[in-house]
Amino acid sequence: MTKPYKLVGREFQQENTHVKVGDAVFGNGSFPVIAGPCAVESEKQVLSIANSVKNAGAKVFRGGAFKPRTSPYAFQGLGKKGLIFLAKVREETGLPIATEVMDVETFDLVEEYADVIQIGSRNMQNFSLLKRAGNSDRPVILKRGMSATLSELLMSAEYILEQGNTNVILCERGIRTFVRHSRNTLDCSVVPAVKKESHLPVIVDPSHAAGIRDQVISLAYASAALGADGVMIEVHNHPEEARSDGAQSLYPDQFITAMEKMMAIHAIIGKKQ
Amino acid sequence: MTKPYKLVGREFQQENTHVKVGDAVFGNGSFPVIAGPCAVESEKQVLSIANSVKNAGAKVFRGGAFKPRTSPYAFQGLGKKGLIFLAKVREETGLPIATEVMDVETFDLVEEYADVIQIGSRNMQNFSLLKRAGNSDRPVILKRGMSATLSELLMSAEYILEQGNTNVILCERGIRTFVRHSRNTLDCSVVPAVKKESHLPVIVDPSHAAGIRDQVISLAYASAALGADGVMIEVHNHPEEARSDGAQSLYPDQFITAMEKMMAIHAIIGKKQ
Amino acid sequence: MTKPYKLVGREFQQENTHVKVGDAVFGNGSFPVIAGPCAVESEKQVLSIANSVKNAGAKVFRGGAFKPRTSPYAFQGLGKKGLIFLAKVREETGLPIATEVMDVETFDLVEEYADVIQIGSRNMQNFSLLKRAGNSDRPVILKRGMSATLSELLMSAEYILEQGNTNVILCERGIRTFVRHSRNTLDCSVVPAVKKESHLPVIVDPSHAAGIRDQVISLAYASAALGADGVMIEVHNHPEEARSDGAQSLYPDQFITAMEKMMAIHAIIGKKQ
Amino acid sequence: MTKPYKLVGREFQQENTHVKVGDAVFGNGSFPVIAGPCAVESEKQVLSIANSVKNAGAKVFRGGAFKPRTSPYAFQGLGKKGLIFLAKVREETGLPIATEVMDVETFDLVEEYADVIQIGSRNMQNFSLLKRAGNSDRPVILKRGMSATLSELLMSAEYILEQGNTNVILCERGIRTFVRHSRNTLDCSVVPAVKKESHLPVIVDPSHAAGIRDQVISLAYASAALGADGVMIEVHNHPEEARSDGAQSLYPDQFITAMEKMMAIHAIIGKKQ
Repeated sequence: MTKPYKLVGREFQQENTHVKVGDAVFGNGSFPVIAGPCAVESEKQVLSIANSVKNAGAKVFRGGAFKPRTSPYAFQGLGKKGLIFLAKVREETGLPIATEVMDVETFDLVEEYADVIQIGSRNMQNFSLLKRAGNSDRPVILKRGMSATLSELLMSAEYILEQGNTNVILCERGIRTFVRHSRNTLDCSVVPAVKKESHLPVIVDPSHAAGIRDQVISLAYASAALGADGVMIEVHNHPEEARSDGAQSLYPDQFITAMEKMMAIHAIIGKKQ
Repeated sequence: MTKPYKLVGREFQQENTHVKVGDAVFGNGSFPVIAGPCAVESEKQVLSIANSVKNAGAKVFRGGAFKPRTSPYAFQGLGKKGLIFLAKVREETGLPIATEVMDVETFDLVEEYADVIQIGSRNMQNFSLLKRAGNSDRPVILKRGMSATLSELLMSAEYILEQGNTNVILCERGIRTFVRHSRNTLDCSVVPAVKKESHLPVIVDPSHAAGIRDQVISLAYASAALGADGVMIEVHNHPEEARSDGAQSLYPDQFITAMEKMMAIHAIIGKKQ
Repeated sequence: MTKPYKLVGREFQQENTHVKVGDAVFGNGSFPVIAGPCAVESEKQVLSIANSVKNAGAKVFRGGAFKPRTSPYAFQGLGKKGLIFLAKVREETGLPIATEVMDVETFDLVEEYADVIQIGSRNMQNFSLLKRAGNSDRPVILKRGMSATLSELLMSAEYILEQGNTNVILCERGIRTFVRHSRNTLDCSVVPAVKKESHLPVIVDPSHAAGIRDQVISLAYASAALGADGVMIEVHNHPEEARSDGAQSLYPDQFITAMEKMMAIHAIIGKKQ
Repeated sequence: MTKPYKLVGREFQQENTHVKVGDAVFGNGSFPVIAGPCAVESEKQVLSIANSVKNAGAKVFRGGAFKPRTSPYAFQGLGKKGLIFLAKVREETGLPIATEVMDVETFDLVEEYADVIQIGSRNMQNFSLLKRAGNSDRPVILKRGMSATLSELLMSAEYILEQGNTNVILCERGIRTFVRHSRNTLDCSVVPAVKKESHLPVIVDPSHAAGIRDQVISLAYASAALGADGVMIEVHNHPEEARSDGAQSLYPDQFITAMEKMMAIHAIIGKKQ
């Protein structure tokens, strides 16, 4: 059967795409970690967390300024103010910034502040947004939709590449299943499956996959073991007070231990692969 | 447990919302049928189909001018030209027009031509689009996402109502499951479940649920039997030549029979309910 | 692709198989209804319900004497005593009896009392049990497993036919999905899909699919509209006191109305099909 | 909410259950590996594979003599002859034997030959079989059903414990989801979730979860990283000639590398946990 995609396929490009974000490289066999809170809440909060995760070895700082929320009554993010706080984090820590863009209207603004732009699960098939991202000079993290097939994920990436932006990092973040003991079900197999089908790097977001702090750590280790090109993890200095996703955010101390073990696992997996 | 939604809930409004689109009323116990091709392909095509479905009893004509497609290489719709053809259909047949809007950028344009605006499954949680729809004076058909829970569907409707637009029609179009003998799995239970939780009308799209012509007819009858507030069905004069969704489009003759039986079933269900 | 099954396929036998159970015929275009409580609780209970459902037009009485229960601490059925009560129902009402068999050890016993033997969802791939059923002279209702594909369902039926018993009635009872507003999700498409692939009759169990009384009625109407070869519905004289599945059992009065409408819908569907 | 289970719960027993099978202990923080072919095909085959996997460090040999197969026409296993070959493996290599039991009728026979008895996914809710296993003096590997919730898995284990057999090893083997790039989807989260809810050991079967050789290796590493109490992996000396599951069986050489890395990962995870 002919593959429905072209530019993202291994047939089109044999060697892995390397996506650079600051000092981090996704796709070259290293294991860069993106960490930070779900949402930017205050300057003090992001600076505190950023210093923690940087010391633990994270290479990119994440934080949402525009938050897609199921409820119109939930905290929707600080918007531009949040982006300014993120810029401050970059200035003070040197960490590049990953943050989500929700629509074409705010794309220019987010692009101005972000080092790598995240497109969320719910927007994986927002084709207008994908096209706009394809015209950006920023790398893009494209999160898999909750019930997207591998082929659909790759086709959405194709929209971006087709417009000229080849710096796309795919991100598995759990799929929706009948399971009730976790928020979503991490699809481990998609990591080797992406690597077979595509030259694009693929990272894992264990925080949204699990939705429960203790499971996040286990899934983070699994992600390293799977041979993913990195992970994106939620860390909060006061998870119990977080304005969103507190239950799945690691404490800074947990993150330090998790980093050590993930890196040790990565070293084993990488060795003979 | 407190419900996460407010304006869309039965607690907030006991009586059913009636949404008027031309002569059709959704939510008042009648069973209006929306029919037409997946995509607008030519003036001749839409006029031919529109006359067929009108004669068979359809109350609203559907046709996509902007098509969200998994592949960037697939037919993306005729755009504004398609909308002009749809206006011609309205002029010639008197049928009101239902057509999809894909993004905020083209909303004004679609709004100008559509009598009822459709928000597709992939955009069910495109919150910027929902807010824009909330500021429209057009009724909105909100299609359930492929893996959306009932609560998430209602919360997305809440975004629209919260901005002031109360004319929202919910639409079940099949969910993604492990099943492989159909494109999606129609979730029958969501019809009575919506009616219990919300005052908004709920219709069914058997075409996208089944993805296979013969199953579409069975599911259409089931939709009438379930007590839905209407259906939306794909009909094409030459399904084998359709530029999208041909395999699930009914032939005009099939649609005539389907209309008769759906109406007869609706009459039975309505009687003592 | 070659079909993995043989005896159950339309290629092997063009004309529909008719399975007779008492006066009822499954597969000949009629719509026999099987009704009764989830579990046999007492002689008085089954006689009371049997008289109700018979008067409403049910053709077969159902009731479980051996109950497969998720918990070892839940009511496991009355066993042989339950079968004796069922025999009494047959004697007094003339209704044939459908009851579940859970294992090979009790097969002889169940076979002695049942007019049609039910194999439950959890046993759909209990191959030893299927082989034993294939050597029975009783018709068999084979319920689809909660996550069985159409092909797997047909292959399980093939086990029975291959041993010589061709009187198999397939039964859709809902599949497990991410949905939480119902116990399971009724897979409507499987009805036309079975009819295309196989000559065996297929009925629907809306009670287990929905798990919620009000939804059961809607799904029962949908089942008739789908062109199923019958339904199996739980009815209880005192649902609130039922020892299992009370929440999904219809009251006798609801069943009377449901019967009328199902039959009226069936008449419409049958007409021109 | 009260837990539906009792004997399997952490509330009932705080400390981990240790299940001994030969030299292997499941549940004490070690990581024993069960390896062997899907089906016993010949004495030569099992001896060859057994020597390979033993040298690589496997602690238990697996091989099916009675095979539950979707199709009645597929290879159903060698039966008693297969068990005799397995006994020969034990005699020659000293490895204890894990093999599946399909029904109560053959339980005595399987029990005579097996060191640990496997109950397959399709039989997870075969309650008669569970009760029989509860009366065995052999340890039991209970595989999770393809769409079983955590609670249902634990309840099935409860059936075994309630009869007196406390030596139960739970086994995650992938769940059925919409995904098509793998045979099933490994549910990583169930490992930490079981450990929280229950004192029973939990192992992972990456072979059935993936269904594709290359993915099996990745999932095996993930299993070690998750903190599972072991894994069960299919290894075949000639996968391309295997009578079942060839596509997911590792070559002996792959297994050697996989063992080394799994053990190295386990050492990291175990350290500070």
